[in-house]
Amino acid sequence: MDAAVEQDSEFANIEEMMLDMGRRAREASHEIALASTENKNDALQAMAEALDGRAPEILLANQKDIAAAQESGKDNAFLDRLKLDADRIEGMVKSIQSIAALDDPIGDILAEWERPNGLRIQRVRVPLGVIGIIYESRPNVTSDAGALSLKSGNAVILRGGSDSYYSSTAIHGALQEGLRSSSLPEDCIQLVPTTDRDAVGFLLSGLDGTVDVIVPRGGKNLVARVQKEARVPVFAHLDGVCHVYVDKKAKRNMAVDIVVNAKMRRTGICGAAETLLVDREVADTYLGPLVEGLVSAGCEVRGDKATQNADPRVIAASKDDWGHEYLDAIIAVKVVDGVEAAIDHINAFGSHHTDAIVTDDKAAAKEFLEKVDSAIVLHNASTQFADGGEFGMGAEIGIATGRMHARGPVGVEQLTSFKYVVRGSGQTRPV
Amino acid sequence: MDAAVEQDSEFANIEEMMLDMGRRAREASHEIALASTENKNDALQAMAEALDGRAPEILLANQKDIAAAQESGKDNAFLDRLKLDADRIEGMVKSIQSIAALDDPIGDILAEWERPNGLRIQRVRVPLGVIGIIYESRPNVTSDAGALSLKSGNAVILRGGSDSYYSSTAIHGALQEGLRSSSLPEDCIQLVPTTDRDAVGFLLSGLDGTVDVIVPRGGKNLVARVQKEARVPVFAHLDGVCHVYVDKKAKRNMAVDIVVNAKMRRTGICGAAETLLVDREVADTYLGPLVEGLVSAGCEVRGDKATQNADPRVIAASKDDWGHEYLDAIIAVKVVDGVEAAIDHINAFGSHHTDAIVTDDKAAAKEFLEKVDSAIVLHNASTQFADGGEFGMGAEIGIATGRMHARGPVGVEQLTSFKYVVRGSGQTRPV
Repeated sequence: MDAAVEQDSEFANIEEMMLDMGRRAREASHEIALASTENKNDALQAMAEALDGRAPEILLANQKDIAAAQESGKDNAFLDRLKLDADRIEGMVKSIQSIAALDDPIGDILAEWERPNGLRIQRVRVPLGVIGIIYESRPNVTSDAGALSLKSGNAVILRGGSDSYYSSTAIHGALQEGLRSSSLPEDCIQLVPTTDRDAVGFLLSGLDGTVDVIVPRGGKNLVARVQKEARVPVFAHLDGVCHVYVDKKAKRNMAVDIVVNAKMRRTGICGAAETLLVDREVADTYLGPLVEGLVSAGCEVRGDKATQNADPRVIAASKDDWGHEYLDAIIAVKVVDGVEAAIDHINAFGSHHTDAIVTDDKAAAKEFLEKVDSAIVLHNASTQFADGGEFGMGAEIGIATGRMHARGPVGVEQLTSFKYVVRGSGQTRPV
Repeated sequence: MDAAVEQDSEFANIEEMMLDMGRRAREASHEIALASTENKNDALQAMAEALDGRAPEILLANQKDIAAAQESGKDNAFLDRLKLDADRIEGMVKSIQSIAALDDPIGDILAEWERPNGLRIQRVRVPLGVIGIIYESRPNVTSDAGALSLKSGNAVILRGGSDSYYSSTAIHGALQEGLRSSSLPEDCIQLVPTTDRDAVGFLLSGLDGTVDVIVPRGGKNLVARVQKEARVPVFAHLDGVCHVYVDKKAKRNMAVDIVVNAKMRRTGICGAAETLLVDREVADTYLGPLVEGLVSAGCEVRGDKATQNADPRVIAASKDDWGHEYLDAIIAVKVVDGVEAAIDHINAFGSHHTDAIVTDDKAAAKEFLEKVDSAIVLHNASTQFADGGEFGMGAEIGIATGRMHARGPVGVEQLTSFKYVVRGSGQTRPV
């Protein structure tokens, strides 16, 4: 790719180029960490305007990517993820503006107390530092992730997929134009200027300590590689094997509505339900309507014996179906002996992402919410609410299933750290 | 070591033994995560009593370690860290009791809000899971770390130093006795039953995903190895290169008191000051009393030209002295051009641990507290306050300088994660 070769020609090799990006990101991170809310929001507004103004150029770049993808025989789903049009660019502009409208988390006093010796201690929110974002074909991640990082006071190194290289480069050019018209350094948002795959490996190494966290945005192969190779913390989820458990004390209509929505509203998102568990005590009367609801919404149902007996359209489930993430109009259904068996199944086969119980029994709900070891647990609501926007957190950069630092939706607050600020009047520590 | 060989004989090799410990820790972690505050406190009380009751046995075991250490020519400082006596065992008992007296962080509602669609969302504190603790010669870490992990609802795998093997094993036996008399599983607190160094490598690998975080307690070599090799998150600090900056608007007496305390109260702790920066505008009048205070407290002073001119007892500093962690009665002193130069020096040479400014100028203090990128920043107080106990957090397991999850003192709250609990009334997500 000519553009790549040209841009990295000042460096002997990819590693040197990446290390230089890391150093520049670290330096920019110190400036952006101290930027005022107004400065950051002005920059975001300028970035949105530049994106809007450069729409024709971005669409032209996107056509180059689309043509290459068609030539290499990519399928329609892939082309749809890659494709930009006026509406999608407008969506990216609005997304930046909505991120500008979020509260600035930096400087928030998270806790504050005074010690008997008069020392006043505050825990104050500060940025994380430098974020590395590795993504695939969706070009809009360039502007979304760039804007979220900037709002949270972080510098970011973006590494887009090779298939969206021209689109991402054009979008990044617009973001840079916006930054130039603000008082913030352009190095706040860098895009790796090469499609060479070695660049990913260097980024995952942490670039000599200059990268604080990596966020992968993409399919399971990407996330698995990042989790395996990264030498810095990763915010991610590998799977979203979400369960809905319908308890004997569930309202039947509510159960059907929640199950069909959890599975079928969108089947390709990580919060989509993949397994339905039904309490044996109501299997006779509930399985029929549940299967009917799913099948008539276009879902393939794979069930255990009891579920197959309830409806002839149910296909026999194999043991590979438990804990399987279909990301498609397919669901696995199993009858279980009450809430404890449901909890055991979920903790054994789930992915610690999002799981729901439907019941009117408060004790069963309490037990489920306490004992299911997932980032998000819901009572009488669809698993499809597993989303930063739906949580009221504004835009999110992904959902994390790790237990460290960020868990659940990763929004601007989750991209921060904190420091302790201690104010005294000359205190020394007694021996 | 006979004890080691005997205990791991049921396993083909160390790796299998460690993987089994990981599995058992993970299983125990699910139980301890749900244990009531009362259960945990009862277990801690029983552990404290067993430790007290087994004091003679523990002292005998400690004598074996001491004899071996003397034979292999360890120095007095080492022997002092290793040595137990009745007072030190009493201290360990009291430490467990004070951990029992701490508030239980688990189940705390960290945030709570309602969405326009009626969903009620809570962020609830849960344990991290399984903690691996790797320490060296101090046997008391066995009980302190075991108790802190239990209080915070975590299972723990302890790996003590080979030099304190018999002492740690005896202390661990007492903790197990306490656990047996409670309703909590003994596997909540496991001690690696071998001195084989390979065990550390396996623990650092995360034991097939069963270990969530590693905390090293010990010298720089241990911490460096853990940070380099660990495939799971680490809570640690490699260095504590703490600075005190004396601003032109500092009260002179306060500056001397704070500097002498920050350096000399204890020189071997991570919060001890290693470098003194003095504002050029007051160097003429402040350096004399500062150096006098330090020297008369027994401190060697290594200074730049200006400091050498102020007092003939000042030795010339070399460039290796900036950013050097002495952990001894030695300090490096440099004259700087005001608060901005001080901040630049600290961010370049510090270790992001703890740094202090002495000044009566509010603007200078604000700038310092904002711009110094350290876990703890202090105004008009000694860096020796960098301690979980002094922060009112109760016992701490260490101080972390990373930006992820835990930063600063790591106490029971920092050993936790959280989950989102969402309560609805049948909500489904609109398309």
